[in-house]
Amino acid sequence: MPVVVTDIERADADVAAAMARLGVATVHEAQGRTGLMHQRLRPIYKGAAISGTAVTCTLPPGDNWMIHVAVEQCQPGDILVAATISESHSGYFGELLGTSLKARGVRGLILDAGCRDIRELEELGFPVWSRSISAHGTVKETLGDVNVPVSCGDEIVRPGDVIVADDDGVVVVPRQDAAKVKAASEARLAKEEASRARYQAGELGLDVNDMRGRLAAKGLVYMTQAEWKART
Amino acid sequence: MPVVVTDIERADADVAAAMARLGVATVHEAQGRTGLMHQRLRPIYKGAAISGTAVTCTLPPGDNWMIHVAVEQCQPGDILVAATISESHSGYFGELLGTSLKARGVRGLILDAGCRDIRELEELGFPVWSRSISAHGTVKETLGDVNVPVSCGDEIVRPGDVIVADDDGVVVVPRQDAAKVKAASEARLAKEEASRARYQAGELGLDVNDMRGRLAAKGLVYMTQAEWKART
Amino acid sequence: MPVVVTDIERADADVAAAMARLGVATVHEAQGRTGLMHQRLRPIYKGAAISGTAVTCTLPPGDNWMIHVAVEQCQPGDILVAATISESHSGYFGELLGTSLKARGVRGLILDAGCRDIRELEELGFPVWSRSISAHGTVKETLGDVNVPVSCGDEIVRPGDVIVADDDGVVVVPRQDAAKVKAASEARLAKEEASRARYQAGELGLDVNDMRGRLAAKGLVYMTQAEWKART
Amino acid sequence: MPVVVTDIERADADVAAAMARLGVATVHEAQGRTGLMHQRLRPIYKGAAISGTAVTCTLPPGDNWMIHVAVEQCQPGDILVAATISESHSGYFGELLGTSLKARGVRGLILDAGCRDIRELEELGFPVWSRSISAHGTVKETLGDVNVPVSCGDEIVRPGDVIVADDDGVVVVPRQDAAKVKAASEARLAKEEASRARYQAGELGLDVNDMRGRLAAKGLVYMTQAEWKART
Amino acid sequence: MPVVVTDIERADADVAAAMARLGVATVHEAQGRTGLMHQRLRPIYKGAAISGTAVTCTLPPGDNWMIHVAVEQCQPGDILVAATISESHSGYFGELLGTSLKARGVRGLILDAGCRDIRELEELGFPVWSRSISAHGTVKETLGDVNVPVSCGDEIVRPGDVIVADDDGVVVVPRQDAAKVKAASEARLAKEEASRARYQAGELGLDVNDMRGRLAAKGLVYMTQAEWKART
Amino acid sequence: MPVVVTDIERADADVAAAMARLGVATVHEAQGRTGLMHQRLRPIYKGAAISGTAVTCTLPPGDNWMIHVAVEQCQPGDILVAATISESHSGYFGELLGTSLKARGVRGLILDAGCRDIRELEELGFPVWSRSISAHGTVKETLGDVNVPVSCGDEIVRPGDVIVADDDGVVVVPRQDAAKVKAASEARLAKEEASRARYQAGELGLDVNDMRGRLAAKGLVYMTQAEWKART
Repeated sequence: MPVVVTDIERADADVAAAMARLGVATVHEAQGRTGLMHQRLRPIYKGAAISGTAVTCTLPPGDNWMIHVAVEQCQPGDILVAATISESHSGYFGELLGTSLKARGVRGLILDAGCRDIRELEELGFPVWSRSISAHGTVKETLGDVNVPVSCGDEIVRPGDVIVADDDGVVVVPRQDAAKVKAASEARLAKEEASRARYQAGELGLDVNDMRGRLAAKGLVYMTQAEWKART
Repeated sequence: MPVVVTDIERADADVAAAMARLGVATVHEAQGRTGLMHQRLRPIYKGAAISGTAVTCTLPPGDNWMIHVAVEQCQPGDILVAATISESHSGYFGELLGTSLKARGVRGLILDAGCRDIRELEELGFPVWSRSISAHGTVKETLGDVNVPVSCGDEIVRPGDVIVADDDGVVVVPRQDAAKVKAASEARLAKEEASRARYQAGELGLDVNDMRGRLAAKGLVYMTQAEWKART
Repeated sequence: MPVVVTDIERADADVAAAMARLGVATVHEAQGRTGLMHQRLRPIYKGAAISGTAVTCTLPPGDNWMIHVAVEQCQPGDILVAATISESHSGYFGELLGTSLKARGVRGLILDAGCRDIRELEELGFPVWSRSISAHGTVKETLGDVNVPVSCGDEIVRPGDVIVADDDGVVVVPRQDAAKVKAASEARLAKEEASRARYQAGELGLDVNDMRGRLAAKGLVYMTQAEWKART
Repeated sequence: MPVVVTDIERADADVAAAMARLGVATVHEAQGRTGLMHQRLRPIYKGAAISGTAVTCTLPPGDNWMIHVAVEQCQPGDILVAATISESHSGYFGELLGTSLKARGVRGLILDAGCRDIRELEELGFPVWSRSISAHGTVKETLGDVNVPVSCGDEIVRPGDVIVADDDGVVVVPRQDAAKVKAASEARLAKEEASRARYQAGELGLDVNDMRGRLAAKGLVYMTQAEWKART
Repeated sequence: MPVVVTDIERADADVAAAMARLGVATVHEAQGRTGLMHQRLRPIYKGAAISGTAVTCTLPPGDNWMIHVAVEQCQPGDILVAATISESHSGYFGELLGTSLKARGVRGLILDAGCRDIRELEELGFPVWSRSISAHGTVKETLGDVNVPVSCGDEIVRPGDVIVADDDGVVVVPRQDAAKVKAASEARLAKEEASRARYQAGELGLDVNDMRGRLAAKGLVYMTQAEWKART
Repeated sequence: MPVVVTDIERADADVAAAMARLGVATVHEAQGRTGLMHQRLRPIYKGAAISGTAVTCTLPPGDNWMIHVAVEQCQPGDILVAATISESHSGYFGELLGTSLKARGVRGLILDAGCRDIRELEELGFPVWSRSISAHGTVKETLGDVNVPVSCGDEIVRPGDVIVADDDGVVVVPRQDAAKVKAASEARLAKEEASRARYQAGELGLDVNDMRGRLAAKGLVYMTQAEWKART
């Protein structure tokens, strides 16, 4: 039975909003290298960086009806996550739906299928991460679900989770972990800032990270070209 | 026997030229969601939007000789459509051929294979929609055909058909349908203009398109999180 | 036994540096259409064009430790070539390593795997040609080799070879052939310059390249639409 | 924090065992066309058809350590579902682990990555559905989770759910729906049996499914070749 | 307007039937290396080799309704060619439709999309060449065309053309060329028979095809390992 | 300058012949998980397992001339390794060339491109590992090299190296390492034999490999379903 769940619990809005600045790579590292969607999800234009709370929906092949249903469930600060139940490259989303979502304060769309009107969406300033770019139109015949857990980009997204998306891809942070992951991300960034200064000054990662002893212990051997040729 | 057909009948030049403004997504919808090439055909640079009449050719694997032959058959306002007869990723087309086609008034190239010199082609302002970007050179040893029907991007293109290409992809409109499809596209755009205003004002697609009754009839159920959990 | 070869012989620095201007397509043609890497290697941002001498390394799946080791072997004017020993899409390289390589005067990275921090790398001005864009982090557990011959992008790269990379892709020039290929590339460009003027003036490739006789000899037939329809 | 959940609740064993006979296509239809994994998951040999209860694990890139951990959590009648957290094609599973799982009464493996020793696994009679066939070895350095919900083949699998796999692919049935889906599948098969007899007797789907009126209502037109040519 | 053309002209039935024995590779060579469909079309089981006359249809994404319509237009000796108008991997075809087509004397199906029930289809002896194997079900909501020219597997197929399919793939022979291509294929096979005897006796292709002079003229050089190393 | 090197040094014939029995997975592990070709190289039929000494050649796109040249350089016990210099899916190899190589005692072909006549090659008993199956014919116009180092399947192969190929894929063993790798493979097999008995008896990999302490040290936690739910 297709359902729309209407009263999902969202991650804290301020925490969710703050994650965009931290970046996908950092957030994914800070939660133990989990939650990163498959690299097939790419931004339709470069430079967007967003974060917000997930509203989810599932889409039958070539059918975008449930996006219309999902729009109504969105609030300002949300990001819509639209998963398909079978690989599909039709253009499920375009400028009119982008206009509608933007009018509701939605920050962007994660779409594991095709997107169209990409120039218009860039002009509108409504970012989409999609699997393909395709103009092929969709029908409105078959139901799916809104605000149930979905598998999008090979990751589980539950309604209310935090989504972070930028030029590196898309990561999902479980709702209940959001504050903890935000703090861990900030700590990681601070540490990287310190390392960056050392790298800029010409120090090597081998020394910044104290790797030489462990490399030798694993058996790494340095040799001259002449020595190498003698072996082979 | 490889042939060059020399006197193809083209769609009306004004109709063909006017379609670029209507856009690939709209034109494809207006002719019943047909004619859209596969999404593997992508522009080598963003922002180009063209339309014109098709001159066609077929290309053997790794051999671009017939492009030279096809250039002579092109007129101002044409778009060259180059299909391969076997998947190939060589770089069949570059800046010199782009210079030649531009000098003849050709508006762009649809190439179901690889393209090279992409920076130079952008500087020249000659847009190409291609399957890959590859510098690998081609030979000139084997013949193909010019101005016969071809299968390009999984669509049939007949000489003189209208081609429309932009950031969303490439669509072909049969020559004899051009005027009718142009009119239908304009009607569709006008209707979308009206819808857009309603979406911008915050109306939902559910209401703009009067979907609620049909969703209920199909069995869509709204419930709370608590009700949903009780089911699962 | 994993090894680091420390005293590789590099191609002449001036020759290596001069190739960027010649371009990937020209260089690849000038050495007999060899040395071009697979088109899956794409620049993470458009407009970069570099050339330099190769430092090589191999990478185990999901493990970027050897990049740290390879950095130390790099000199100003080098390009790092990082090959994987199994298809992998993790994000082996990001902004910190980019900062480190840039601080050493390295001109860019060829990475047959995933790259992350792509916006930061563009801001830093450190170009990367990679197989994918992925934020997924890597570990530092398993050794590989530095400065041995590697297979990267389906091409053999030996330490000290010349790498040329631009928007068209990546080509490798064997160290001992560098001067000869540079000269042949320049000759080719000069010849193309002459052809370009003729193409701009509206001459056809059929005439610029004197192809008509050979086309006829191969059996190409020109006919009218009416004649063609009579055949089919 | 990586966890192993030790006391999962499984679907009824008899229900789970009975689904193999019903087949993936039927089961997926009977639960509303949901739950089907992506077609990239293919059997390493033809002819196997299994069903059972899911034990799940997640795998870091190129690291199969958690399969060893998961084996201990398996019981007779289970199917192991191994999801990766990043696209990976290493050979995570081979004959020794197959011997171990078979010794525990496990019926098969769903592996969203690479598999090796495929001839030995066929001889052993231990079926695997995998993303690729690759001999590349894996390490044992990084933890993942066992018996948490995972995204495998673009579908969510929860521990204890029913997995059905045959030559058509893999489908997951939520634990709490298993009995209902089994019944619906059996009803569907009975109905198909009746239809099959009519098809064998030469009746058309148009009549068996009473489609002619609806086709006409949608606007389908029958015409002769001559009429069709007059239109185009 | 969706149409069904009812009175297509078919290639000669005896000629069409005889081509299976000649094989895809030979037929494709005999008509000038044209007509071969893309290699993505693979048989769902090995060993089938068929030929016959094409009945064509187009399929909307995820919608197999038109296959039911097309069945009625099929006669004994036909092969159904089902093209999609957008990339789709749903399972458009299974055992019931296979039973129906077989009951009408149809020899097989070429399907540029997904197929299911592959074990049952093999048991039934009804061969399918498809793009993917997927159990995902389809709807019956949107019309397409039957017996119009289609683009299937990157090739144009016109109703009544001859289709030949075996383990090497699928080739289409234009209706009006069928007799000529059959004769050319037989001549080619006879010639190959003679060559085969010479190859079996240990003669080299260099001599059987008299290639040595042309290789030398193109500049091929034979040298010893020592000479080669001196060059590099 | 295209060259044929005529007097390559081969690995010991007995060592090369003995490796087939050891298997691709074992050999690749025994040499430190290196040398495994990309999983895109798949056998055209199941069950073949070969090893032998490499004769190499490079192939221009869509041109198989150099295979004819390479045949003459082959001896009994060799395996031909044919690399392309650009991605290509044409059918470079079929039954006649298979007959010729078999007549010379060659054990099989590794072909990083398309293969045809696959049923005939299976009947002949001449195994091929290829990138695709495609009947598309090739020309004989452009030269390549024979018996130089090549990049095939993303691995470097030097003439005289040992090739091992079976249902798991293809691995290359450098000529000078062959005896050492054979010995290491045999040792590995002996060790696996001992492990297999323990697995068959129901022992767990956790105990056979003494992993429990290290898992705990890395932080793996066992918990009940109730404890897990309390965390999330």
